[in-house]
Amino acid sequence: MPTAVIAATRAEIRDLLRDYAYALDRKQLSTWPSFFAEQCSYRITTRENLERGFPLSIMLCSNRAMLFDRVEGTEKANIYEPHFYRHILSESDIRAQPSELIEACTGFLCVRIMLTGEMTLFACGEYRDEIVRENERWLFRSRTVVLDSSKIDTLIAIPL
Amino acid sequence: MPTAVIAATRAEIRDLLRDYAYALDRKQLSTWPSFFAEQCSYRITTRENLERGFPLSIMLCSNRAMLFDRVEGTEKANIYEPHFYRHILSESDIRAQPSELIEACTGFLCVRIMLTGEMTLFACGEYRDEIVRENERWLFRSRTVVLDSSKIDTLIAIPL
Amino acid sequence: MPTAVIAATRAEIRDLLRDYAYALDRKQLSTWPSFFAEQCSYRITTRENLERGFPLSIMLCSNRAMLFDRVEGTEKANIYEPHFYRHILSESDIRAQPSELIEACTGFLCVRIMLTGEMTLFACGEYRDEIVRENERWLFRSRTVVLDSSKIDTLIAIPL
Repeated sequence: MPTAVIAATRAEIRDLLRDYAYALDRKQLSTWPSFFAEQCSYRITTRENLERGFPLSIMLCSNRAMLFDRVEGTEKANIYEPHFYRHILSESDIRAQPSELIEACTGFLCVRIMLTGEMTLFACGEYRDEIVRENERWLFRSRTVVLDSSKIDTLIAIPL
Repeated sequence: MPTAVIAATRAEIRDLLRDYAYALDRKQLSTWPSFFAEQCSYRITTRENLERGFPLSIMLCSNRAMLFDRVEGTEKANIYEPHFYRHILSESDIRAQPSELIEACTGFLCVRIMLTGEMTLFACGEYRDEIVRENERWLFRSRTVVLDSSKIDTLIAIPL
Repeated sequence: MPTAVIAATRAEIRDLLRDYAYALDRKQLSTWPSFFAEQCSYRITTRENLERGFPLSIMLCSNRAMLFDRVEGTEKANIYEPHFYRHILSESDIRAQPSELIEACTGFLCVRIMLTGEMTLFACGEYRDEIVRENERWLFRSRTVVLDSSKIDTLIAIPL
């Protein structure tokens, strides 16, 4: 059964979530894989997909090499109109599994800002995370981005 | 005079606020009354109403039975177009009254997501809460949702 | 080199950031200068300006007298269509400099609410703050509001 975590651990987990969001919002895309554990997965899906048990993903990286590929692709291909994100995170629900795996669930909202200055409420939903301690750092074993809306820009170029 | 609360109490109060928001965002509407004390009230009003001293409410439940009626009505009547909420909470201002009543004030923003996927900035404002300890849980004695905007969808089907 | 701050200091800094945002959202504009140290500056600029090293500011107060002038101008001139703000803050990155200066960086989103009730996603970006201890209070030595978008309402009447 999951148990509550102590305040110090909670603060450290929040630091991980915060640093991840700031890294994306500051377009430090090359640091993105460094937030993940050696064995990891990253997936963007929708609430509807998840509830209906559909395996569809909007983005899926099932290991660390795929994260690096993703970054490289995004930086080199440059096939999307340049834009910035601004993430706002809600309070997290953080629980520890007996295996010392930490589970965190965090509501978020993401604004997209185009170079023209146009701001759009781009995405909202929940981060569902499995977090592990590796090399004295907290890292994502898995991060699933569950979007509230299934009407998604077909091209999510930058990870959320 | 209200006084500051210790960090542990503050964290517990934030857990209550967070769990309430996630319950609504996950459409666990039947759990909604369980966040309230035996003697309780729930009200949605606007900043303008409050400042002018108008007694008008957009939604008002002045006891626990009315909360249950509200849930039942919403689930059975089904007269509204289905949608989801996503709440994002700001930092809370939390103070203790000498009577051990806790007062909390929390800015919020709520996005509404229709089944078509359409996302709208639906509401923002402040939660003004009176929170009590009952049966070893923190519960709302009163929760007043003060909306910033008085231009409201006439039908707020799901509580905020 | 900047170092981490203890949890108690972090909580106090967050209180400052929170109180500042609530003061603006509640239109308590006359209290705005009281959040700043004796020697202080306040600036609104854009990410693009900052990255290109442009000195342009959307709003600039380089001392405390200018803050008071700003408040007076806004309250008396009344040349703008009345509106309210609602700030939502993200988690802060808080670090201490050896000089006991605290540096904080905080993502934010600001909704603007007109008297007609119209709500707009008005601004988002980062607060970059230098915070000092003065007269037993934490106060802003400098607050730089870095907007994500450079497409700004030419008239930002109320500080962000």
